[in-house]
Amino acid sequence: MKRTLNIGLFGFGTVGRGLYDVLEETQLKEARIKRICVRNINKQRGVEADFTDNPDDIFNDPEINLIVELIDDAEASYTIVKRALERGLPVVTGNKKMLAYHLEELVEIQRRTSAPLLYDASACGSIPVIRNLEEYYDNDLLISVKGILNGSSNFILSKIFNENMSYPDALRLAQELGFAESDPSLDIDGFDSLFKLIIITLHAFGRYVSPERIFVYGISTMNDDDIRFATEKERRIKLVAHVEKLESGNIMMSVIPQLISRDKYIYSVEDEFNGVVIKGKFYYKQFMFGRGAGGYPTGSAVLSDIMACFYNYRYEYKKLNAEVVPEYTDDYTFRIYLRYSSDGDLALFNFLRIREKYESETSKYIVGDVRLADLCRVKEQLRGRNLFLAAYPED
Amino acid sequence: MKRTLNIGLFGFGTVGRGLYDVLEETQLKEARIKRICVRNINKQRGVEADFTDNPDDIFNDPEINLIVELIDDAEASYTIVKRALERGLPVVTGNKKMLAYHLEELVEIQRRTSAPLLYDASACGSIPVIRNLEEYYDNDLLISVKGILNGSSNFILSKIFNENMSYPDALRLAQELGFAESDPSLDIDGFDSLFKLIIITLHAFGRYVSPERIFVYGISTMNDDDIRFATEKERRIKLVAHVEKLESGNIMMSVIPQLISRDKYIYSVEDEFNGVVIKGKFYYKQFMFGRGAGGYPTGSAVLSDIMACFYNYRYEYKKLNAEVVPEYTDDYTFRIYLRYSSDGDLALFNFLRIREKYESETSKYIVGDVRLADLCRVKEQLRGRNLFLAAYPED
Repeated sequence: MKRTLNIGLFGFGTVGRGLYDVLEETQLKEARIKRICVRNINKQRGVEADFTDNPDDIFNDPEINLIVELIDDAEASYTIVKRALERGLPVVTGNKKMLAYHLEELVEIQRRTSAPLLYDASACGSIPVIRNLEEYYDNDLLISVKGILNGSSNFILSKIFNENMSYPDALRLAQELGFAESDPSLDIDGFDSLFKLIIITLHAFGRYVSPERIFVYGISTMNDDDIRFATEKERRIKLVAHVEKLESGNIMMSVIPQLISRDKYIYSVEDEFNGVVIKGKFYYKQFMFGRGAGGYPTGSAVLSDIMACFYNYRYEYKKLNAEVVPEYTDDYTFRIYLRYSSDGDLALFNFLRIREKYESETSKYIVGDVRLADLCRVKEQLRGRNLFLAAYPED
Repeated sequence: MKRTLNIGLFGFGTVGRGLYDVLEETQLKEARIKRICVRNINKQRGVEADFTDNPDDIFNDPEINLIVELIDDAEASYTIVKRALERGLPVVTGNKKMLAYHLEELVEIQRRTSAPLLYDASACGSIPVIRNLEEYYDNDLLISVKGILNGSSNFILSKIFNENMSYPDALRLAQELGFAESDPSLDIDGFDSLFKLIIITLHAFGRYVSPERIFVYGISTMNDDDIRFATEKERRIKLVAHVEKLESGNIMMSVIPQLISRDKYIYSVEDEFNGVVIKGKFYYKQFMFGRGAGGYPTGSAVLSDIMACFYNYRYEYKKLNAEVVPEYTDDYTFRIYLRYSSDGDLALFNFLRIREKYESETSKYIVGDVRLADLCRVKEQLRGRNLFLAAYPED
């Protein structure tokens, strides 16, 4: 007979509460929440549970044999997860930002202490993408992973494209429904997608690449002209995270809005859903699709990680230990759509080739080819400018 | 350092050849085909490999430490798989018919001899549905698994619905492309889907139900009237396998053509693709989609099973050993569309309620409610009659 998992839970926000409710409803014998550590102990939460605001109350409880970390703050999350692993305690976490920055070290600590760290819930909520990349797509056949990894920006794009909602209204609705992060720029500017891409890349290709190196561009400057352009071309704008093994054997990575045509799987991924396309050498394409945000879907994803802990599952990081691990490269060319207003902004871009150029009294755009390396170089300078950039693949 | 897997391969049809090519292309160090047992040793196959027609040449080779069984004949497959497991040899098989009839016994033999049997390639080709049900959807939250599990009947339906192809032409094309089983009735009459459903149900809900008990009805009697009816209702006919945990806690199962409306995920599953919708209590719906037939996709699925063997993965059949395992029930009511020609045929059906009735000089149909138990009772009598039956959910 296996032991019961006595969970020390950190955080009781949307996901923590979702996990609590899912556990209440399912009445599992394998796991129960023993104590919950929150920042504000005085807040009324309407549940019968043992709350504390002192992490030591969890770490010093000898009965607690699993840490579940579901707080928002990446640095506090890192402290908790590291402390737990160093003590040999298994950890389930949903904090993608923390993972994206510290995964390399956390893998090393796991190796040293043998304490497992599971985080399928951190990428794509209820879609088991990490475990599938780790266990199933575990050979040389994998070519690329590409998808919509952020439910809240996708929700906003859906409302804008399908219901003509304004950007602020759509953002407010996403926040009301509990889809958006407390800092919406994480969703809207692509960083949430980027963090998930870092995690996915480690499990897809065995390479850790730090977030700073990757080109990331979001949807916050998208305007009506951009929407009109997409609609005229019978495309939709989606925020796409992408890692691909190139012919050189190296991998490119990016998070960038894309003009997606109707025949693509992710064209139809709407609202808060996530969709991931896994492309392989022989199986062509596979598509996984499900709820990527919200307390219950993510709570049940956390529960799957908890159950995996119960059965002593751990990521083996096989690809990380492979003989040949691909290097990250920015030697890749995109065809992009660029809407801009000033020549100064345009000068930031080094077009290899210009395919279309349009100017009216109110709007200008260019369709042309740019190198990912050139985009990376001006990444920081693009922020806050009155322009919008989207990959515009030829199909 | 792990040992190399020296494979004794049985069968060199579409999938066996697919596996051979995939292994040749990837040049894995972990696994190689040592010997191939085929029925006809004299057939020219155009590959450099060690062929035999004597199974003993494989079983008596002490270097062979993995059996991969990819033959068509279910009884011969059973003999090989059982013999291997009894000797403690790990086995990878793709034979769904064999599994559907013998899985209960094969689980028992695995328990006794500790030799693992893997068969993710048997259901849905390249989609890792079994492993996900086994590992990820491993708690009480699962409600239903529903999908298009047979690539070749779906290919035929796609050609008929989208390209106005005739049924025989579409079938011939499917066979030419290597999608159809050598006995097409397995595809067309729903048995291939049924076998996969039996395997999926065991891993989804822990219950083995023998194929004879399940209502299965295929597409071979579908005619232009049925296609017209579906098109008028803006639906498509898809052959759907379905297992669902009902409120009673029991599971219903069926394989039946369904009139699928545009807003369903499986509406857009076309050609030889498979699509599976996994529904849970908290995560709502997830959708997995990929190539379900063909030598390369299935060959790469077999390779994933081989690699899983290399890493000592085995199905643990956790749900089969759960305290409460749901019982199979046929206490379930369908709304169906029935096109028929004679009153004698109609008399086979016990409609609880008739919702629509149509008669012209050339065609008659009824839309109404029938119990699954009543359908099961007349299952055999339905074969060969000039009628067509499809579930017609209200949505």
